[in-house]
Amino acid sequence: MKVALLGPEGTYTHQAAEKYFEDLEPEFCSTIREVFESDTEAKLVPIENSLGGGVTDTIDLLREKDEKISGEVVLPIQHALISDEKSIEDIEKVKSHPQALAQCKQIIEQHGWSTEETNSTADAVTGLETGEAALASEIAAEINDKNILKRSVQDRDVNVTRFLVLNGEPEAREKSSLILEPGEDRPGLLHAMLSCFAGHEINLSHIQSRPTKEKLGEYYFYVEAEASGEKLQKAVTALETYGDVQNLGGYRKAERPE
Amino acid sequence: MKVALLGPEGTYTHQAAEKYFEDLEPEFCSTIREVFESDTEAKLVPIENSLGGGVTDTIDLLREKDEKISGEVVLPIQHALISDEKSIEDIEKVKSHPQALAQCKQIIEQHGWSTEETNSTADAVTGLETGEAALASEIAAEINDKNILKRSVQDRDVNVTRFLVLNGEPEAREKSSLILEPGEDRPGLLHAMLSCFAGHEINLSHIQSRPTKEKLGEYYFYVEAEASGEKLQKAVTALETYGDVQNLGGYRKAERPE
Repeated sequence: MKVALLGPEGTYTHQAAEKYFEDLEPEFCSTIREVFESDTEAKLVPIENSLGGGVTDTIDLLREKDEKISGEVVLPIQHALISDEKSIEDIEKVKSHPQALAQCKQIIEQHGWSTEETNSTADAVTGLETGEAALASEIAAEINDKNILKRSVQDRDVNVTRFLVLNGEPEAREKSSLILEPGEDRPGLLHAMLSCFAGHEINLSHIQSRPTKEKLGEYYFYVEAEASGEKLQKAVTALETYGDVQNLGGYRKAERPE
Repeated sequence: MKVALLGPEGTYTHQAAEKYFEDLEPEFCSTIREVFESDTEAKLVPIENSLGGGVTDTIDLLREKDEKISGEVVLPIQHALISDEKSIEDIEKVKSHPQALAQCKQIIEQHGWSTEETNSTADAVTGLETGEAALASEIAAEINDKNILKRSVQDRDVNVTRFLVLNGEPEAREKSSLILEPGEDRPGLLHAMLSCFAGHEINLSHIQSRPTKEKLGEYYFYVEAEASGEKLQKAVTALETYGDVQNLGGYRKAERPE
């Protein structure tokens, strides 16, 4: 299946797509907007990271483009130490995206390696020279036929990114994403809107406020509710008495790492 | 008064500080963390922008450092495209603070410019090389003797930033900021916490979720409530039955532009 996603080849987004799609034909884009605007059968975008929080570009584009969500993928980000060298003793310098270098400080300091920043983790792998290693995904090592000297070299284990699949065929409808736009700014309106979920015993697993870009302090809400179908529709009917609601679709809930 | 704020001279923070303090003696810092860690009489930090949303570094540091908030300033922002080049056709890359880059997405995508993040909008202006432009205040172009290629290049005209004053003497206590940390993850807990405000007829003017960085999907909330003193304390007492609450202090509400 043809799937638009953030490139280049060998990034973690690519790895997430490989995890979700059995017959992936990736179409690599350079921005999240480009992914949304491509006319592939399906698309994959990052929505949330355990360290950085909500991916604001994705949330704003979900509201703007009104694409249907058909699935989610949860990927623990684990950096591998990748090289043409065969032994970790031969490494003198590591290259990667600044974020990955920051996440692997302990092993870098332990070995006293020098560092060099690259535009992406995948770029680091393609630009390797003698005595150098890259911090990147295992898939980047496979694609470029390099050696994995050590797996999972990041400092902590809580770096997890969640991705949404757009435009595909949902395997199930366990949860749904909605955009809520309060119709006015008055005391307690957010509480009143959330009471539509509480009243129908629907759990919210995610809520993120984003500016409407119309006026300072005017926000809309991206929420994920653990319901779909008739049960969700009751909440939506109640919500619509307070403002506008976009239903972005129902999809299967992915398993979270412990 | 000695006030720590994001420098160098000519940033929007500088402009906001001039607006708030009559006797400003600015102490320029290079990161928001440095502002928080300085020991000046007062500090000024950006908290929210009408296009970019909440300033996540500030919110995370409010939670980490527990500084008291004593005031707020609201400032309309207009970015200029600034360069040593004389024509917009010669620009290949734009540099600025990530938030300014986010606020000028349309012109950047239109021209296909690459981008580079800097610590401040003013830093972008002083570090310009051939083929590069900065997004910054017009005053920064004047101070550094650069060309303004285009004025007011932000996506929309509703670009307003709100700043918080820390550590000063509040002129009044019309509103308060709180950090809420739910004690568990269960259906309806956010709704239950918000009911503590609704029940005491306290309006929330702002709510922002941020990851705790412990686990995917685990969030804390930064909220601004239009109350202080005894009335707020009742809500806080109720809130504490659901989780941890940090009261960051009460302060005067600044006027918003129409």
